[in-house]
Amino acid sequence: MKGNILIGQSGGPTSVINSSLAGAFKAAKDLGIEKIYGMRYGIQGFINGNFVDMSDHIKNELDLELLKHTPSSFLGSCRYKLKKHEESTEDYEIIIKRLNELNIKYVLYIGGNDSMDTIMKLSSYGESIGSDIRFIGVPKTIDNDLMATDHCPGFGSAAKYIASTVKEVIRDSKVYDMKSVTVVEIMGRNAGWLAASSALAESDNAMGPDLIYLPEKAFDTEDFLNRVDTLANERHNIIVAISEGIKSKDGKYISEGVDGTKGSVDIFGHTMLGGTAITLSTLIGSNLGLKSRGIVLSTLQRSAAHMISKCDMEEAFSAGYQGVQYALDGKSGIMVTFERISDSPYFIKTGFADINSIANEEKMVPTDWILDNGLLKTEELKKYISPLIQGESYPIMADGVPMHLTIER
Amino acid sequence: MKGNILIGQSGGPTSVINSSLAGAFKAAKDLGIEKIYGMRYGIQGFINGNFVDMSDHIKNELDLELLKHTPSSFLGSCRYKLKKHEESTEDYEIIIKRLNELNIKYVLYIGGNDSMDTIMKLSSYGESIGSDIRFIGVPKTIDNDLMATDHCPGFGSAAKYIASTVKEVIRDSKVYDMKSVTVVEIMGRNAGWLAASSALAESDNAMGPDLIYLPEKAFDTEDFLNRVDTLANERHNIIVAISEGIKSKDGKYISEGVDGTKGSVDIFGHTMLGGTAITLSTLIGSNLGLKSRGIVLSTLQRSAAHMISKCDMEEAFSAGYQGVQYALDGKSGIMVTFERISDSPYFIKTGFADINSIANEEKMVPTDWILDNGLLKTEELKKYISPLIQGESYPIMADGVPMHLTIER
Repeated sequence: MKGNILIGQSGGPTSVINSSLAGAFKAAKDLGIEKIYGMRYGIQGFINGNFVDMSDHIKNELDLELLKHTPSSFLGSCRYKLKKHEESTEDYEIIIKRLNELNIKYVLYIGGNDSMDTIMKLSSYGESIGSDIRFIGVPKTIDNDLMATDHCPGFGSAAKYIASTVKEVIRDSKVYDMKSVTVVEIMGRNAGWLAASSALAESDNAMGPDLIYLPEKAFDTEDFLNRVDTLANERHNIIVAISEGIKSKDGKYISEGVDGTKGSVDIFGHTMLGGTAITLSTLIGSNLGLKSRGIVLSTLQRSAAHMISKCDMEEAFSAGYQGVQYALDGKSGIMVTFERISDSPYFIKTGFADINSIANEEKMVPTDWILDNGLLKTEELKKYISPLIQGESYPIMADGVPMHLTIER
Repeated sequence: MKGNILIGQSGGPTSVINSSLAGAFKAAKDLGIEKIYGMRYGIQGFINGNFVDMSDHIKNELDLELLKHTPSSFLGSCRYKLKKHEESTEDYEIIIKRLNELNIKYVLYIGGNDSMDTIMKLSSYGESIGSDIRFIGVPKTIDNDLMATDHCPGFGSAAKYIASTVKEVIRDSKVYDMKSVTVVEIMGRNAGWLAASSALAESDNAMGPDLIYLPEKAFDTEDFLNRVDTLANERHNIIVAISEGIKSKDGKYISEGVDGTKGSVDIFGHTMLGGTAITLSTLIGSNLGLKSRGIVLSTLQRSAAHMISKCDMEEAFSAGYQGVQYALDGKSGIMVTFERISDSPYFIKTGFADINSIANEEKMVPTDWILDNGLLKTEELKKYISPLIQGESYPIMADGVPMHLTIER
């Protein structure tokens, strides 16, 4: 006899994290699971007894379509780190008790590295107490930094938004007949996939960014200013795309230079970034005497559901769907993965990998794709990213604005 | 015998300023004008002898469609203030000489208040020397602050982008089960039309911003902090939309508070703004102890051609088209205007107004639409703005990214 399913979302939002939720919901329905519960605010909310019956919110096909076009985590999210069960079983006991009360046999968690840490610890604890509850991770991150998978749902849509928006910023920046430098700050703490995507703004009909800096290689401020200065002798408008996480040789974030203070630290010990573009454009102004503007794409790049990649949306949906199938097949302690069979025509195979090989690891942009920090081997990069940003799935509009499905209203 | 036409674009970019250019180009073709010249970088570029034959760049219907979907000024722009001809005729003599050399009888200038100042001065000079060259202004500004017209091309698309993006930011901001305040900074130096548009993020399916501040009424920092504090007792996530140009009772920009320095001043004497959202979110953090994030929509809001309003694009095209017709009808020293006949069904009539009633004036949001700064009478506002953001005209895509028409490549 089948039990019920519990689905959670965790970590930072993406434009298609709800497509994975929709895929999991659809699979659970198709495969005859009776009750489909959703954790409110991830595992932390569930520990506090916060959950919903998803059928109360997704009542028909239109709701499911709306959910796929709603950015950010429909169920809410958390950044909560479970202690190892060897250290404390308190959280685990509450979780297992609640799961049993609701007759939940399958737990799906849609998230990034930190969320996979949660799935790893839950399945490890489950195993240690001989539980038959299955724990499955569904990948989600705009950062594209999960191991064992060719790429991550969420990345393609963010990359498409970044390439398109940087292309528009370039049009805007070239409008005046005077020297100017525009520095666009793109998310990415350690992995530079998102900043690298700005290279796709370049095409036959338009130039891309002049310089692109990733965190995978050390950032040299003096060399940067020299390059901008040289470029400024050749052309009027210079566009620089940088990852928020670029660091100097001694491992210090460039954004820490603003006020000499160390940025605040989140619950997982990550330094919270921001201000890199402003820091650099201030430096360009003061050292080179050039007009400079910093533009921060901020949370827009992870929630721009109005500019979703159709490929990404469909893959996110199928990752959620497949996760439920794996759970019903008896798998546990795994994450759904994509293996790329070919670039052109683009073809992937869905699979799975042991969660222990994924949690808390990060996949970086190969350093041999970086010619020299500031310049990328765009051929390799485009071959990899281009298929992921193909196709559009425009929002369902009402009164000129996208419709969203929300829990509160 | 007809002469040739010269078209220029001036001031800040919009998503549909090129639709007006496309409309003017199409009209000139349709009406049998032989040569269609474009000023490169506005009147300043033309004075320096910088112009193109537009037929070298727009060769077929596809080019014209691409032009309509390319944001920012295709021809380049300037912020150049002509001296009154009573003070100096130097620029005017060069301009008239060049116009005569090219047999130009019609000059169309697509722009905002400052650009209408240029048209006013050119037509006044032309009249003073008995020239038969006609000078026509075509309205363009995301700020929607031109007098004598119901609204301005460019505003509808910016408003649609702002409402949609703020709606996505709200989804993103509500994701964690913890108190947070998100401050979204929207363009608008003196007129609050753009910040007011964020109210359209609200609908049956989703909440809008909790507070909206416009520059039309004085901003009281203490009152603002009190309201945020009160709201924070009622709900978790508070979203505030502010115009970059909000000022205190003594007329000081809130953004000037950051470092005590006065912002730099552009060629027209306008203070260059920025930093209002960061100033306020820093204040919220330090005074109320709440987690706060500032998001600056920056130039994205004026160049997001991927999120154009179809209504706005069509009206921008027809304003350009109509401008050429007026010029051929013998009109000069006027700007194309829209008169609203009805809200629902939405219907406008194209007309014209004396440029002297427009140049250097600004149309503000009616203060009786502002309940109390922070809160708007959204019914009035929505009736006015909603028709302008209706319909979509999605970009022509190539390889997953919008295609643009550019002069350089």
